[in-house]
Amino acid sequence: MTTVTHEDVRAAARRIAGHVLRTPVLEIAPGLWLKLELLQHSGSFKVRGAFNRMLSAGELPESGVIAASGGNHGLAVAFTARALGARAEIFVPEVTSPVKVAGLAALGARITQTGVIYAEAAEAAAKRAAETGALQVHAYDQPEVVAGQGTTGLELVEQIGEVDTVLAAVGGGGFAAGIALGTVTPGGGPRIVAVEPERIPTLNAALRAGGPVPVEVGGVGADALGASTLGGLAFEVLSGPRVDSVLVTDEAIVAARRTLWERHRLAAEPAGAAAYAALLSGVYRPAPGERVAVVVCGSNTDPGTLTTA
Amino acid sequence: MTTVTHEDVRAAARRIAGHVLRTPVLEIAPGLWLKLELLQHSGSFKVRGAFNRMLSAGELPESGVIAASGGNHGLAVAFTARALGARAEIFVPEVTSPVKVAGLAALGARITQTGVIYAEAAEAAAKRAAETGALQVHAYDQPEVVAGQGTTGLELVEQIGEVDTVLAAVGGGGFAAGIALGTVTPGGGPRIVAVEPERIPTLNAALRAGGPVPVEVGGVGADALGASTLGGLAFEVLSGPRVDSVLVTDEAIVAARRTLWERHRLAAEPAGAAAYAALLSGVYRPAPGERVAVVVCGSNTDPGTLTTA
Repeated sequence: MTTVTHEDVRAAARRIAGHVLRTPVLEIAPGLWLKLELLQHSGSFKVRGAFNRMLSAGELPESGVIAASGGNHGLAVAFTARALGARAEIFVPEVTSPVKVAGLAALGARITQTGVIYAEAAEAAAKRAAETGALQVHAYDQPEVVAGQGTTGLELVEQIGEVDTVLAAVGGGGFAAGIALGTVTPGGGPRIVAVEPERIPTLNAALRAGGPVPVEVGGVGADALGASTLGGLAFEVLSGPRVDSVLVTDEAIVAARRTLWERHRLAAEPAGAAAYAALLSGVYRPAPGERVAVVVCGSNTDPGTLTTA
Repeated sequence: MTTVTHEDVRAAARRIAGHVLRTPVLEIAPGLWLKLELLQHSGSFKVRGAFNRMLSAGELPESGVIAASGGNHGLAVAFTARALGARAEIFVPEVTSPVKVAGLAALGARITQTGVIYAEAAEAAAKRAAETGALQVHAYDQPEVVAGQGTTGLELVEQIGEVDTVLAAVGGGGFAAGIALGTVTPGGGPRIVAVEPERIPTLNAALRAGGPVPVEVGGVGADALGASTLGGLAFEVLSGPRVDSVLVTDEAIVAARRTLWERHRLAAEPAGAAAYAALLSGVYRPAPGERVAVVVCGSNTDPGTLTTA
């Protein structure tokens, strides 16, 4: 039994209903669906976890909420805080794209840009939270956050029925772990293909080492999949038997992002295209007749780079 | 009884099933849906009519198909011809955006850019068709085309049940007319709010004049809603009692396009945002509790302009 369970995901779904969008699915070929989580409020799945964490907390402290984030989680916490009438203070590393910083500002969050990578911003945020008493909303390693992200998987199964395989991107691992939990069925559940950029292999390294270990962070996905260490909760789930860890190159991610635009008019950010990259590049090859869903999970990108990057 | 009927739309849906995407719907607020037809193959609804016209024709002539189009219809005919293994020859007016011309070339169509406005390109295409024997696929004024576009409406009702109101853009009118036919129910059907740019009021002028009349063509929607005269088939349907004609300013279209990107990460072209503009600008105000669907119908746009235009 993992710390977070399928029942926690179901409870999260009831809690956040009406606050988040039920993102649509698009069947792009027989038996191949894209789950369009990039159309979610704030441009990524992260609001699911943020709402679940904040709504689980009961009354929020006067000092509001605090988060550290490479961008998408920060945007989600800022969006959620605004929706719930709370203050938000967001710590982001310097690698964060200008589009995301501008988005945070537009949502009324107080922003501190500090540290080269996510882990340094997270440390600064934790210190600040201890001073102010604000509620910390972790980007991936809190039970309420994992359960919230998992509602994506629960919703997917409600929309298209049981599938054989779900491909999802891994940064800190909360999203893929949540989806693994959310898609559990009486018979077991689909295979989860957990996709990471070769240059940020947090899960792959953790599986080799027998537990989360720090990795170097780089490449096109760094601003959204830039956690340097897999979450402990994610490891509990993703080290289980239903999960495959696969790696994709930055070139494959860039090509997948371009294809999502050219063929499907979806404006994914690189991290949002990573799962599709595993399929398009042939790193993951479905069997004939296999029912496959690919989660396209983020769109906080400068759209001008869709045709030029 | 109109020339094209609800039954024709149903037949079209059976004919084109598997060739076009079942585009998803996104409920952005309680009782307010966006029909994401901009994610359709070739970036607009136009493939529905193109497939229905070509598949209705039986065997296609050796010389293939021919069409005149401000862009989206041309892209759709080129896409459809390639899918069915036929040649395509496309006549486009000089106003056509470079993005669309490049898209046509990528689909392997033979392109002739001629005439200042759509009507001139259409005349040249008709002349050429008479010479080569190619099957003409009209951009809006053929029964198979209207019926094909109408499958968008049929699908919408299947997806979300009966709605009170559907907002759709009007150029030559084939799309809105098709939707009016496709959404017919035993009890009547929803109100169709037919939205046009103030600078291309083909339906509005036709309703005043008692029949289609030429109008001047200009503004941000001209490359996709640039028909100068409403289609005769469209007039039959859109002059009926279930239809409201409303006009939106170019400024409202630009604002709606920007909002679709900022809030929903949808990359609509101006014409694709026109229907939403009617809602966002308050030109159309739903009553409390009214169930409203807005069709976002095209995405053949330079994404770099989503944040700058």
